[in-house]
Amino acid sequence: MSLYNSSFKEVSIPKGVIDLLPEQADKIGYIEDKIRKVFELWGFRRIIPPMLEYEDVLSVGMDDDLKAKAFRFEDRQSGRLLVIPPDITPQVARIEAMRMSGYPLPHRFYYNGRVLRHAESQSGRSREIFQSGVELIGLDSPEADAEMVAMAVEILHELGIVDFKIDLGQVEFFRGIINAALLDDNTKQRIQSAVAKKEVTLVQEILDKENIADNVKEEIMALPRLFGGIEVLKSASGIVHNQSSQRALDNLRQVVEILKIHGVSDQLTIDLGEIRGLHYHTGITFEGFIPHLGEPVCGGGRYDTLMSHYGVKVPATGFAFNLLALLRSLEKQPDVEASKSRDILLFNNKSDRRDVLEIAAMLRRNGYSVARDIIHHDSQASLAYAERMNILYVMVVGDESLQQDEISLIRVSDRYHETIKRPDLLNKVHKITNSEK
Amino acid sequence: MSLYNSSFKEVSIPKGVIDLLPEQADKIGYIEDKIRKVFELWGFRRIIPPMLEYEDVLSVGMDDDLKAKAFRFEDRQSGRLLVIPPDITPQVARIEAMRMSGYPLPHRFYYNGRVLRHAESQSGRSREIFQSGVELIGLDSPEADAEMVAMAVEILHELGIVDFKIDLGQVEFFRGIINAALLDDNTKQRIQSAVAKKEVTLVQEILDKENIADNVKEEIMALPRLFGGIEVLKSASGIVHNQSSQRALDNLRQVVEILKIHGVSDQLTIDLGEIRGLHYHTGITFEGFIPHLGEPVCGGGRYDTLMSHYGVKVPATGFAFNLLALLRSLEKQPDVEASKSRDILLFNNKSDRRDVLEIAAMLRRNGYSVARDIIHHDSQASLAYAERMNILYVMVVGDESLQQDEISLIRVSDRYHETIKRPDLLNKVHKITNSEK
Repeated sequence: MSLYNSSFKEVSIPKGVIDLLPEQADKIGYIEDKIRKVFELWGFRRIIPPMLEYEDVLSVGMDDDLKAKAFRFEDRQSGRLLVIPPDITPQVARIEAMRMSGYPLPHRFYYNGRVLRHAESQSGRSREIFQSGVELIGLDSPEADAEMVAMAVEILHELGIVDFKIDLGQVEFFRGIINAALLDDNTKQRIQSAVAKKEVTLVQEILDKENIADNVKEEIMALPRLFGGIEVLKSASGIVHNQSSQRALDNLRQVVEILKIHGVSDQLTIDLGEIRGLHYHTGITFEGFIPHLGEPVCGGGRYDTLMSHYGVKVPATGFAFNLLALLRSLEKQPDVEASKSRDILLFNNKSDRRDVLEIAAMLRRNGYSVARDIIHHDSQASLAYAERMNILYVMVVGDESLQQDEISLIRVSDRYHETIKRPDLLNKVHKITNSEK
Repeated sequence: MSLYNSSFKEVSIPKGVIDLLPEQADKIGYIEDKIRKVFELWGFRRIIPPMLEYEDVLSVGMDDDLKAKAFRFEDRQSGRLLVIPPDITPQVARIEAMRMSGYPLPHRFYYNGRVLRHAESQSGRSREIFQSGVELIGLDSPEADAEMVAMAVEILHELGIVDFKIDLGQVEFFRGIINAALLDDNTKQRIQSAVAKKEVTLVQEILDKENIADNVKEEIMALPRLFGGIEVLKSASGIVHNQSSQRALDNLRQVVEILKIHGVSDQLTIDLGEIRGLHYHTGITFEGFIPHLGEPVCGGGRYDTLMSHYGVKVPATGFAFNLLALLRSLEKQPDVEASKSRDILLFNNKSDRRDVLEIAAMLRRNGYSVARDIIHHDSQASLAYAERMNILYVMVVGDESLQQDEISLIRVSDRYHETIKRPDLLNKVHKITNSEK
């Protein structure tokens, strides 16, 4: 009879959040470690912003869309509104303004945290988003933007992901065109939205009704085609004529040149019709895509004005990985070293615990993961347990069939079995476990 | 003129939360790594419960006090109430019931997360609590409880903390006494509260007004004295007479015996008047104390009935560390290896970036953390920057004073300076940075 009653199994957890069980949690840990290592090698240092902020303070750094997605509630202490941050970048901007004035620029920060966002029930979107990202504050050069992309690529390589694309955009390119058209805000908004969704017919319809110079219409209609390899930069340059868009192309060209030196060219695509960057973006934007994943694994870009909302005029660039998207991508790869098997289940058949506890401590000191099998059952049951729980070896101390100073080690996968004298224990364990690998 | 405007500096963040800047965040990372390593060596596997739960589901595993502390709000999607979990153990109980029925017992889980709790404004308490903890599910033996305490002690040792105490209690000891007194619930509650606060006079006053057998009164009045070394177990045994309390003493004695084998005796204290365990505790409880810290660094205990609220009848024991308390303790130690200095600030004086990007990549591949100094200023300014930002070395490529294939390496601490030929670069960097250590 099972101990488990089914009454609570139907009670699901809220939509848009998940329980990460050991196999997935191990992979998340693996992803976090790889990302952290690269961030640190590039000279970034971790900060941990809080999970609660004053709504009025954080709102300064959020657009309306993000504000609408924030979980908010009244502070019992102060009566002010609190939010659970829906994005970490505005927090970093606040921290930069409040805490970092004594330190010379630039500042390189990374974070690894979770944010909460409201989502439509039908959207199937995550409401809890696991983010690891960086902010490089105080530099406005293309080299800083290239540093972001190069790090993103290095991390994807470190994770063993080879099939991916980095899609580069520049929000000022579109803004230059649309501003040259001298339209009212509402029409701008409608065009932007139609272009973002690549609804060419709709864009045409809107433009037909507006009194816009033909060359500007052509520029706007060309946007959905300005997508592809690096050669797009050249064709775009022949199409647009306003200074702002040309500057944006120059900037993009410089970033691409530096990325070539970083060895990042083959994975680059350019999308000048791409204007999905967050509201606070002001230059280069990029997203990383893995085939058949349905959502970008990373994204970011330049945001030179965000910090000024907090009273600090400094340029900045940054990006973040979506860890659950990376997790889904790694789950498609069979051989990720991430999912750790535990080493040894240690089973004691003696009434005295002294021996078994000493052995456990000795093995742990030598780096073996050792779980004690405290339940009293036979060694067959121990083996079945180990198999189900992904434990590689079962060690038995004090079995009837053994001499006083003998220990039995069983490899779970093939039941290979060896009897070991106590003084040889560590050597034999090294030997047997290494022969496996 | 500073770029920094002070207008936002006064705007504080909500009370009870903090920004962890790099030096502190590094230490948190160091603490997390040490804890994780020990948990894994003892065969525990990570799970990551979500930051949102349905209130009605999680409430099943929370007492009234915890429920009152939870941040809750309406789910826009379902209309049901949501909570940000104020404690992770009820989440683990839910996960055990919902997801783990296919796996044989016992289950060893660990987690590393943050919870939010409302707090009184005056209390000065954290509202965001950083917890790393374990749950050992499916074992009711004293050996499982001893495993919790032994792991806590091993982690404190790993963190270099030597001066600490583990305070052991057993909630059934007090419950046995108070239940034998046959009092109404309200009186029980008042006595429990007075005993918890060690208000001896108040306890006496309450008892004087009640019709209780003298021997029970004596037992209750003895509680505040039943505190000290392991010898307390013996004196307690002579004072109480009800079976339930005697069983609790036996249980405590067995745990202490196993802890002796684990090498944990000197740090143990016994407090039988200690009844501060969480509502769901049903046996052994313990807390870890470091002198002058004002709050325990870890705490936990047995909770054999919690899981049954979720329809699963399994015993369990567990504990968690309070990471911010550990951080405060480590900040008092001068030589924690946790606060990492970054290795090299790499400064380029050439117009071509090829060389400097290659050097950066090569050094990173060899484990050096390399931040690129992209701002254009002189090397004196680079040195000043490195000093302020805790970077150990400045490397200059393409300085006027250098030959084409020469690179300059300056140790920031004493301005020791060496000119290195490009082919010797890695060897020299190894040599110079190792001579420091």
